[in-house]
Amino acid sequence: MQARSIFQNLSPIDHRYSLSEKELFESLVPWISEEASISACVKAEIALIKAHLTLRGQDTQELLTALKKAESSIDPETVYSEEEKTHHNIRALVNVLKKAVPQEVAPLVHLGATSVDILDTALAYRMKGVTQYVVLPLLKKLELALCDLVEREAETPQVGRTHGQHAVPITVGFALSEYVSRLGKSILEIEKRSVELKGKLAGAVGAYNATSVLVKDPELLERLYLSELGLEASEHSTQLVEPEYLLRLLLEFNVAFGIIANLADDLRNLQRTEIGELKENFSADQVGSSTMPQKRNPWNSEHVKSLWKAFSPRVMTFFMDQISEHQRDLTNSASQRFVADYVAGFCQAVARMTTVIKGLGVDRERLLYNLRGGAGSEGGNAGRGSGIVGGVLAEPAYILLAETGVSDAHEVIRRITLQAEQEGLTFAQALEKQPEVLVRIGGKMAELGLVPSASDALSFFEHPERYCGLAVQKAQRLAVKYRSLMSR
Amino acid sequence: MQARSIFQNLSPIDHRYSLSEKELFESLVPWISEEASISACVKAEIALIKAHLTLRGQDTQELLTALKKAESSIDPETVYSEEEKTHHNIRALVNVLKKAVPQEVAPLVHLGATSVDILDTALAYRMKGVTQYVVLPLLKKLELALCDLVEREAETPQVGRTHGQHAVPITVGFALSEYVSRLGKSILEIEKRSVELKGKLAGAVGAYNATSVLVKDPELLERLYLSELGLEASEHSTQLVEPEYLLRLLLEFNVAFGIIANLADDLRNLQRTEIGELKENFSADQVGSSTMPQKRNPWNSEHVKSLWKAFSPRVMTFFMDQISEHQRDLTNSASQRFVADYVAGFCQAVARMTTVIKGLGVDRERLLYNLRGGAGSEGGNAGRGSGIVGGVLAEPAYILLAETGVSDAHEVIRRITLQAEQEGLTFAQALEKQPEVLVRIGGKMAELGLVPSASDALSFFEHPERYCGLAVQKAQRLAVKYRSLMSR
Amino acid sequence: MQARSIFQNLSPIDHRYSLSEKELFESLVPWISEEASISACVKAEIALIKAHLTLRGQDTQELLTALKKAESSIDPETVYSEEEKTHHNIRALVNVLKKAVPQEVAPLVHLGATSVDILDTALAYRMKGVTQYVVLPLLKKLELALCDLVEREAETPQVGRTHGQHAVPITVGFALSEYVSRLGKSILEIEKRSVELKGKLAGAVGAYNATSVLVKDPELLERLYLSELGLEASEHSTQLVEPEYLLRLLLEFNVAFGIIANLADDLRNLQRTEIGELKENFSADQVGSSTMPQKRNPWNSEHVKSLWKAFSPRVMTFFMDQISEHQRDLTNSASQRFVADYVAGFCQAVARMTTVIKGLGVDRERLLYNLRGGAGSEGGNAGRGSGIVGGVLAEPAYILLAETGVSDAHEVIRRITLQAEQEGLTFAQALEKQPEVLVRIGGKMAELGLVPSASDALSFFEHPERYCGLAVQKAQRLAVKYRSLMSR
Amino acid sequence: MQARSIFQNLSPIDHRYSLSEKELFESLVPWISEEASISACVKAEIALIKAHLTLRGQDTQELLTALKKAESSIDPETVYSEEEKTHHNIRALVNVLKKAVPQEVAPLVHLGATSVDILDTALAYRMKGVTQYVVLPLLKKLELALCDLVEREAETPQVGRTHGQHAVPITVGFALSEYVSRLGKSILEIEKRSVELKGKLAGAVGAYNATSVLVKDPELLERLYLSELGLEASEHSTQLVEPEYLLRLLLEFNVAFGIIANLADDLRNLQRTEIGELKENFSADQVGSSTMPQKRNPWNSEHVKSLWKAFSPRVMTFFMDQISEHQRDLTNSASQRFVADYVAGFCQAVARMTTVIKGLGVDRERLLYNLRGGAGSEGGNAGRGSGIVGGVLAEPAYILLAETGVSDAHEVIRRITLQAEQEGLTFAQALEKQPEVLVRIGGKMAELGLVPSASDALSFFEHPERYCGLAVQKAQRLAVKYRSLMSR
Repeated sequence: MQARSIFQNLSPIDHRYSLSEKELFESLVPWISEEASISACVKAEIALIKAHLTLRGQDTQELLTALKKAESSIDPETVYSEEEKTHHNIRALVNVLKKAVPQEVAPLVHLGATSVDILDTALAYRMKGVTQYVVLPLLKKLELALCDLVEREAETPQVGRTHGQHAVPITVGFALSEYVSRLGKSILEIEKRSVELKGKLAGAVGAYNATSVLVKDPELLERLYLSELGLEASEHSTQLVEPEYLLRLLLEFNVAFGIIANLADDLRNLQRTEIGELKENFSADQVGSSTMPQKRNPWNSEHVKSLWKAFSPRVMTFFMDQISEHQRDLTNSASQRFVADYVAGFCQAVARMTTVIKGLGVDRERLLYNLRGGAGSEGGNAGRGSGIVGGVLAEPAYILLAETGVSDAHEVIRRITLQAEQEGLTFAQALEKQPEVLVRIGGKMAELGLVPSASDALSFFEHPERYCGLAVQKAQRLAVKYRSLMSR
Repeated sequence: MQARSIFQNLSPIDHRYSLSEKELFESLVPWISEEASISACVKAEIALIKAHLTLRGQDTQELLTALKKAESSIDPETVYSEEEKTHHNIRALVNVLKKAVPQEVAPLVHLGATSVDILDTALAYRMKGVTQYVVLPLLKKLELALCDLVEREAETPQVGRTHGQHAVPITVGFALSEYVSRLGKSILEIEKRSVELKGKLAGAVGAYNATSVLVKDPELLERLYLSELGLEASEHSTQLVEPEYLLRLLLEFNVAFGIIANLADDLRNLQRTEIGELKENFSADQVGSSTMPQKRNPWNSEHVKSLWKAFSPRVMTFFMDQISEHQRDLTNSASQRFVADYVAGFCQAVARMTTVIKGLGVDRERLLYNLRGGAGSEGGNAGRGSGIVGGVLAEPAYILLAETGVSDAHEVIRRITLQAEQEGLTFAQALEKQPEVLVRIGGKMAELGLVPSASDALSFFEHPERYCGLAVQKAQRLAVKYRSLMSR
Repeated sequence: MQARSIFQNLSPIDHRYSLSEKELFESLVPWISEEASISACVKAEIALIKAHLTLRGQDTQELLTALKKAESSIDPETVYSEEEKTHHNIRALVNVLKKAVPQEVAPLVHLGATSVDILDTALAYRMKGVTQYVVLPLLKKLELALCDLVEREAETPQVGRTHGQHAVPITVGFALSEYVSRLGKSILEIEKRSVELKGKLAGAVGAYNATSVLVKDPELLERLYLSELGLEASEHSTQLVEPEYLLRLLLEFNVAFGIIANLADDLRNLQRTEIGELKENFSADQVGSSTMPQKRNPWNSEHVKSLWKAFSPRVMTFFMDQISEHQRDLTNSASQRFVADYVAGFCQAVARMTTVIKGLGVDRERLLYNLRGGAGSEGGNAGRGSGIVGGVLAEPAYILLAETGVSDAHEVIRRITLQAEQEGLTFAQALEKQPEVLVRIGGKMAELGLVPSASDALSFFEHPERYCGLAVQKAQRLAVKYRSLMSR
Repeated sequence: MQARSIFQNLSPIDHRYSLSEKELFESLVPWISEEASISACVKAEIALIKAHLTLRGQDTQELLTALKKAESSIDPETVYSEEEKTHHNIRALVNVLKKAVPQEVAPLVHLGATSVDILDTALAYRMKGVTQYVVLPLLKKLELALCDLVEREAETPQVGRTHGQHAVPITVGFALSEYVSRLGKSILEIEKRSVELKGKLAGAVGAYNATSVLVKDPELLERLYLSELGLEASEHSTQLVEPEYLLRLLLEFNVAFGIIANLADDLRNLQRTEIGELKENFSADQVGSSTMPQKRNPWNSEHVKSLWKAFSPRVMTFFMDQISEHQRDLTNSASQRFVADYVAGFCQAVARMTTVIKGLGVDRERLLYNLRGGAGSEGGNAGRGSGIVGGVLAEPAYILLAETGVSDAHEVIRRITLQAEQEGLTFAQALEKQPEVLVRIGGKMAELGLVPSASDALSFFEHPERYCGLAVQKAQRLAVKYRSLMSR
């Protein structure tokens, strides 16, 4: 066996990350390593022999058993050393295979096929396999972890933020249910796209030239061949399968990647020292910084974002690989091999994010402290500029005031927030100083059943967490829906 | 009216290409110009008023008529000059609108909405509109032109090429049916994605905070609002609609763009001086080069490819715009505006490609000349290195020979092609020099019914165009299928 | 004049941003509009005539004056309507020009030139011009504004942050001097690259075929032609100037764009409600949100970041445009036109960032409050999770302890920070509880002259702002250096 | 040693390409493998100890020898297993190192440094090393191979092509000298950028906080540390070295990559069956296609282009990694590790292209055949549409005619080419049919000394290869210049 120290590999995928996510790496090897690539081609070549035997009515149990044995007998090293002679990977494989199969079927090896009939079919087989057996289970595990967290924190108050500024209240579960909804739909798309992957046995230029000479119904031969591998045929082939089947799967991977990167950014920011609402799991003897012992870094979320930066732009390669001149040029050959790297990088990010979500700490006290106005809340915000305490309720104040028929309500409330800021008042205090405004608002609230009576209005403005709309219901509803969809 | 000389615009979209594809430009203005953007926001604001009126049972015909009038009365210039005061585009619009509507409904203007409830909904409305009324009709016109051409040239022989080398024969129609199949599927995907675009009325952070205060069932209000515009609601909203609805549509645009770019590359190359199989329409007084009067440049195909280079990488922006911190940051605001440029560039490419396809000249004599071996065909290829005449039939020779039980058939034929090359023979001539091989092949052909008798084998190798598999049927079948799908 | 309502343009560059940064837009029109493109070609054609006249010794003042008049007499509209006939832009221009110049020089119009001799030269001329007269002055204005701010705030304490966590103290000026240094170097690179832009007069394939027939020294003719426009010749030309001269300038634009985007991200984050250290200028009647009157959004910084998302990925187009088959294909023609959009978008970002920097509010009280531990600082951090008060001094504590010979100093201090966190102590308080540690540290500090005596150690840990290394000097030094470099 | 079968690696870099370019792979391991990464960090840590010893006057020979020994004693595996405990790579290394060095210097290990002081410095050291010892020698070997080829083929006639159409004559050497010029300049830029790479010892946030406590002149300590590694200091540091030093090197790699990809495209196209001017080296027993024995594929050039597609878009990652919030976030950590993949992919392309250039076959007969009009040349072009024989001389005909004072010369000649095309004449024949035109042209040629007398004009139009301007001189001049520059 040609082996090499892991630390002499060049790609982080094959050294650092193959160790930090060892189990993941090992689950990928049977699908997207070079070994996997060769053994999938062997599988395809054997499938082709079987298809020929079936058409000829020669698919005896004995031959099938012999083929099964041949399939498992071929190792990548032998193929590689043959390739040194042929300078052509499939021709090398064919030479090796001819020696491994029973002599009577040797003439059927690769019969009627062009290299890409094997290669593109094997690629579809491997990409479908890795998606269904590795990528989707990983993604669903993450989605379910998100559903759990959403339900657990469905009612935990949090301040909603836009532009990094306090806006109006939501709940932690609601915020996270965004990702349940977005990622959930992406998972369903990935599922669908993986089943759409296609193979081919249409020959050198896609017109079934060779197989038309060999058999009556070359499309039947193609169907027999592909069904052995659980695939269907590309609607039109050149030498290649239509590139869009795979492209759309990869694009949807990148869509999911973007969603996870967005989640990572949210988590990173909510762990800022000044915000401190969330915390990644922190094992007892972990070191945050080599010189700053106090550091608790959101490094897993940062890692996920960084992987997105590394892999997301590679979609441009996928788009460039759509273009192949005439019935094919070879300029997609090397580039397409790196799809394996992309899949590995994407899975690494999904796995890491799952770890983060499963171990995510939620600081409820801090959440409430922030929601109520943060630093400013202990006695006005003068000198701290931390926003207006209770400022997140400016919105309902404006709406309610408008409802009473005040047409410049937005302007009226905006001036009250400015005053609060200048005088270091909470929003409730500033509102209290404008009794005519407060009365109108209170009246409206009572009318709408939001408070028992108009005089309770002020208490509403002192408890911003109550103003969170449908946040709780929406979070719960989405968790239930997607948990159910994931287990189908 | 604030007007400007077209030639003082900076983007080619607004100067050069707005003139070269004038009709296209004008069809885009109602959907993706700044005027369109503002008027779609007006439309959304009016829809919101109507939704409120409906919920309140106040949607009288009189008010509806007044609103319709208000809708059409607002021009972008007024909104812009108001924005100079507010520094906020939707607040500016609201101020203008409040003056335009009947006084009794003024308090309902924008009631319960945050800016993005209007902006994102209006964007969905416009993107759905431009897709259905401009992009899809353009694409279908191209697809139908391709179907026509495929059917017309279904039986026209052409040499298939891989790696830019002669491979085995196909037909012109078959080669083009690749694009019927690929583009056809992309059109159907675009159709589907356009219908999936969503709007929202879920407020500042997506939790229906404001509308929960105002109405009993805020999701009903949202449905009423959106149905006025032919839209449904984002499954989860932050301040924004989930970004993936639009993202997937744009990605599919880019998929279609890649397909068209591939077609452009094929057409460019088939117009090379040495190949000369196709020719873009060439009007009588057109100049090919300012100094080389003999030039006939494939400049329309080049133009299409160049547009692809300009626009295709912009998908990275679309992917980056998936990420918005917390309940939204504004970093997708400017970038998203440039979706308009993308759509314009894509449409420009589709329109231009349609012109090319509709006027494409096919040189049948040259096609046959190339297929038969090109330069070499007039008396051996010595000294021209133009490939082996009839070399495209090396494949069936190898397959047939293998079928007779010769296990190194590939090697035998490869040596014959080398000999042909060295001695300046046609493939048929070289084959003739190996009678034992020719006999085996001829026998097999007769057996398979490919020639009347073994002695006719040589004639087969002198007419390579006969060896084109299912090319004709496949081309015809795809043209019929997609013509029908397009007209649904 | 062919005019159009600004609001009917499709690209935001030609509608929204042409109004929001009107002055900038108008400064770009003479360089990168379609009008500019045509007039630069006219200028190049005239330069060619002059070069011919000089070589022939016929460059009389009278002719030169007539040419100057001809140059200014040509308007884009005439050229465009001629192009409708020729379908070739330069041939159209030549036709128009021949009528505009004195009859005796008409045969010299375009003599020996291929279209691209004019187009690529005119592009170099325009790109050099726009860089030197618009881009660089804008960038230098930003750099100088940064220098001013850095000097003003060189001593203003701020907490340094890594991973969004409090690390160790710096100053505001130091933090901003990062951008003085990075952007400053980029400006100098841009300056250099703009001067390297090249033109050509080497004919259809770069071999001076035509001019070799016409004149003795075609390279002398080229030099005369280009020197009229302040340019030198491409070292090797095909039909095109070597693409890398322009590419490297554009890449450096994108480098500067990335630096500015980084600055924008820093500014955005420092304006978060919970951080609140900086504030973008906020005019009196500006509206932050259409529904949340309390909002103060960092929308200018967000705008800059968003522009970066829109334009930065376009470098892929620039890289793709390096590739032109043989002596040129036309697939860089449309794509290259969009360089104008890129330049406009980049300038828009620079201008906006300058506005931000010039109006940036710095909240010194809040800065100190954050540095000292934020929310936790008013009596321990229990229940707020806001990090350990004074935790930013864990680093010097560890270093000083290590210096006394304690080899596991890092671990010792890490445990003290954990204890502080668990018991709600400030770092100084937790340190006080470990007298043996404090004594060692104090001793070392006294020895190093950091405090008068060992017993003053605790006071050091209560004033973290003193621990800021060379922050002040470094900030001042960089501001001085780059102010001077900018004014050269 | 943790080893793994090469075929179980996921990235093609670590399996397929590590075998196909074994020597290259092995030359990269000491610089960009994980092993190299760790040992460069060890080297940097040792350099730091030495700098401290020097400042303290304790750099005895004995200690230096002991440090040298310690440096070579550390293997990656030990560091990795320590990291499993610390979850922090540099802290792990520090722990291991403290045990390996003499006890008296153990307290100096990592003293005053933050992790990134080591990591970023080690990265600069490795990137400088790999550039100078691997990348540049590879590039120069390619450049010199190009220079050789250019000189060898400086006078070999070839038709120049624009838009894939025959334009005017050049020579093979001239065409290739384009790449000598473009690549040569890029190599010089890479050389310059590699020397500009910087390290740092400025601590956690770049302000020398820690080292200011420890030593009098922290910048002197930094200089001592870096000079051990042959580096200088980043002008400003945060926790990170300014990202642009490395970015500009990587961008220039990508510039060179684009140039090589352009060359690959040219070579691919010149090997088309119909063109056949060039041929990649083809070993005796190589197989072109698994089914088409006659194929001779330009697969090495295709491979190079495909690598460009795979790696070129990764510049977007490099640009995204410019952005790090505040004094650094960690989102550039994973992404930056993949710079190793990029370097490996780029080197793979350079090495492969060198093989192509060194073995490139030039078919002079075919070149002349194409130049003279290709297929059409044997008796008119009727029915072959292969361009007008001799059509490449339409340009000088037009120029010469114009010189005689015919102002619509371009139009006159264009009509002659149309006539030639319609009647199946060569250009010379068509010209002969217009005696009044031929006479004017001949007269002018004689006047300019291009032919002995006017009646020799026709012979000029029958030998297009003579019309190649400065092609020969230019090719030779560039080869000489860059051969000399490369050996400096």
